[in-house]
Amino acid sequence: MDKFNLNKNIMIGQSGGPTVAINASLAGIINAAALSGLKGKIYGLINGISGLMEDRFIDLSGFMTARNNLNKLTTSPAMFLGSCRYKLPKAEDNEEVYKTLFKKFDDMNIGAFFYIGGNDSMDTAAKLSAYAEKIGSDVCFIGVPKTVDNDLCEIDHTPGFGSAAKYIATTVKEIVYDTSIYRQDKVTIIEVMGRNAGWLTAAAALARTGDVPIPQFIYLPETVFDKDKFIKDIEEELTKHNNVVVCVSEGIKDHEGNYIAATGGKGDGFGHVQLAGAGKVLENLVKERLGIKCRAVEINISQRCAGHLCSKMDIDEAYDLGIFAYSLYRSGMTGVLSSMRRIPGDEYHTEYYAADVSKAANGEKKIPLEWIDIENADVKQEMIDYIKPLIQGEVPVNYVDGLPDYIDISHLIPAVNK
Amino acid sequence: MDKFNLNKNIMIGQSGGPTVAINASLAGIINAAALSGLKGKIYGLINGISGLMEDRFIDLSGFMTARNNLNKLTTSPAMFLGSCRYKLPKAEDNEEVYKTLFKKFDDMNIGAFFYIGGNDSMDTAAKLSAYAEKIGSDVCFIGVPKTVDNDLCEIDHTPGFGSAAKYIATTVKEIVYDTSIYRQDKVTIIEVMGRNAGWLTAAAALARTGDVPIPQFIYLPETVFDKDKFIKDIEEELTKHNNVVVCVSEGIKDHEGNYIAATGGKGDGFGHVQLAGAGKVLENLVKERLGIKCRAVEINISQRCAGHLCSKMDIDEAYDLGIFAYSLYRSGMTGVLSSMRRIPGDEYHTEYYAADVSKAANGEKKIPLEWIDIENADVKQEMIDYIKPLIQGEVPVNYVDGLPDYIDISHLIPAVNK
Repeated sequence: MDKFNLNKNIMIGQSGGPTVAINASLAGIINAAALSGLKGKIYGLINGISGLMEDRFIDLSGFMTARNNLNKLTTSPAMFLGSCRYKLPKAEDNEEVYKTLFKKFDDMNIGAFFYIGGNDSMDTAAKLSAYAEKIGSDVCFIGVPKTVDNDLCEIDHTPGFGSAAKYIATTVKEIVYDTSIYRQDKVTIIEVMGRNAGWLTAAAALARTGDVPIPQFIYLPETVFDKDKFIKDIEEELTKHNNVVVCVSEGIKDHEGNYIAATGGKGDGFGHVQLAGAGKVLENLVKERLGIKCRAVEINISQRCAGHLCSKMDIDEAYDLGIFAYSLYRSGMTGVLSSMRRIPGDEYHTEYYAADVSKAANGEKKIPLEWIDIENADVKQEMIDYIKPLIQGEVPVNYVDGLPDYIDISHLIPAVNK
Repeated sequence: MDKFNLNKNIMIGQSGGPTVAINASLAGIINAAALSGLKGKIYGLINGISGLMEDRFIDLSGFMTARNNLNKLTTSPAMFLGSCRYKLPKAEDNEEVYKTLFKKFDDMNIGAFFYIGGNDSMDTAAKLSAYAEKIGSDVCFIGVPKTVDNDLCEIDHTPGFGSAAKYIATTVKEIVYDTSIYRQDKVTIIEVMGRNAGWLTAAAALARTGDVPIPQFIYLPETVFDKDKFIKDIEEELTKHNNVVVCVSEGIKDHEGNYIAATGGKGDGFGHVQLAGAGKVLENLVKERLGIKCRAVEINISQRCAGHLCSKMDIDEAYDLGIFAYSLYRSGMTGVLSSMRRIPGDEYHTEYYAADVSKAANGEKKIPLEWIDIENADVKQEMIDYIKPLIQGEVPVNYVDGLPDYIDISHLIPAVNK
């Protein structure tokens, strides 16, 4: 029998960390449902799978006919439906949870469950689809990818990454402008997100434009970070330029695999040691070893939520992955990830396909070592060629009273009732 | 005799910290000179007054007829001419410096010297104009204001502040969206620039829009910061909302006037203590006292150099202050600051006037205490009404290859020749 049924309701949830593209995928699913002539409702889970446990959801059906809301949703950062970090247990360990969830699916007459998220969310979608098969449930479980870290497998790159890369490259370029105004020797260390994969930090290489060869160094977690080489790199560069800008991933590690960030030890009473990031630790190292002006700058959570500076390519692809996810439901597929692959060639082309969501759930995609120039603490052209298409284009954001007019999220911050 | 002379050359310098509006003032002066029919050259000092000592300047005359360059200059952040922190000695202490400088003015046939900067730069302009009067020099010295801190006297608000305020309000709003996705109790502390004046931090209040009353608290350096009240404020708010966002100025101080930022003491070998900002110190305090999730976010130097998110009102005013500065030279004035005052009324209106640059050089403008709601750790409506007009409008930035196309600054980063 065909699992796709226009009379059934569908359910959408978001999970994991925020990106500026995740709401675009949500909008894509909603619009595809509308265009399919869906007669059922579209339920939006508040706070993902844990919201389902607590019966917290809203009816998104109204969005199907409200183009303005869809447009605003598409360009609003973070998560309109909220998120959760709930890790679904294995069915063999706790089948009660599954029984509870699938009873809700039945009671709510759910035909498809779309989960937008990263590795953990795909793990949830994989477990649910496996259990559905086991019990012969018709509910389709479809994963929709997102994560700024770009470490998801089974996809060329993840929605959210392109915009974060554009924000990082732009911000690093602006910091280069900011730090170039004085002539004194100065080192600026920019710390970018990325515990194990350096994709976001690598994007800083795009900030080098025109005749300004700054930032000079990029250190990624895929390679060993050597403090002595780091100091030597800077000393040498200072003989060429007064303004040295270094970009490092938060997760860079030494030969023993220990984080450069001061995470070990209890530290002083204020806990500063375990709280000092890689950038701050290296700032202190430069001051001690070279005795020159050094400042650490952490590109903080803005890199994943700066909705005012999105990559149009990223938002468009996120939206299309939502559309494609719904088409997978139309084909009656389950246990799949709405994915895309890059078509080899000089121009940037992608094609969409259904990947195995269980494969996406495991593993962590890192930068190929052959794309990294370890000797010069830099990335190679292959890395630039990979990222460049993903930051192209700007998304027109509507401003009201001088601020971006994002979609209202007051439903995510209810008065606490304890 | 009339000091204004179309056949004489003019000199422009920039000094102090960067803003996104300072180049707009430079463009305004250049364009006004062009429109005045100036036959002399326009010299741009590289690295301000210290660049003059070392005869480092470029000829900006070409910009007079290059509309594209002027437009790009107007919307490029930081300082096209570079900056310096050189403090001009008093003439009575070191007249040699003055003799050197004025000989250069004569040799280069300078009719007017425009210095774009903050308090220290205005001090330089004031000293030079006083000395000129003393020796009967015809050179006009005109100050053009800028500083993100908005702490300059003799002007309603400073160019650069409006754009920084817009960036801060936008970023805080986006962080509010980012932090609203989970339901667990969480405190986020956002640290904003401002050692003694809280203007930039106050701008965070504009981030509250629609039905989202976050950030809930704003702590400014103009008032005493009480750690116990701070913890009590948060505890109370947590009974109303899970997501508590607090904005603090880097310079908040306790009853004894000591910075909350861990600046004292040697700290551990890594010097973490003296390097921990106010936000990080409060993050640790919340974790210790309340034992809940807390994260400090420092809105770093991007708040003063994010050219991709400018306030059109700010850039327009900065440009006009450059135009007006040149008109002051046309009137043969010296020792003046190109300034503006707000005209009382419901709508936002300003008028430009010549202020005494020596008065602008001294003093530091802080937020009036009556604009601060100390009890509720917030700002009052007067504060909102003051800032709101300054963040209005967006500046269209040209993007090339996915990044803002700012004016080339390679002349600021020459190969070092040691």
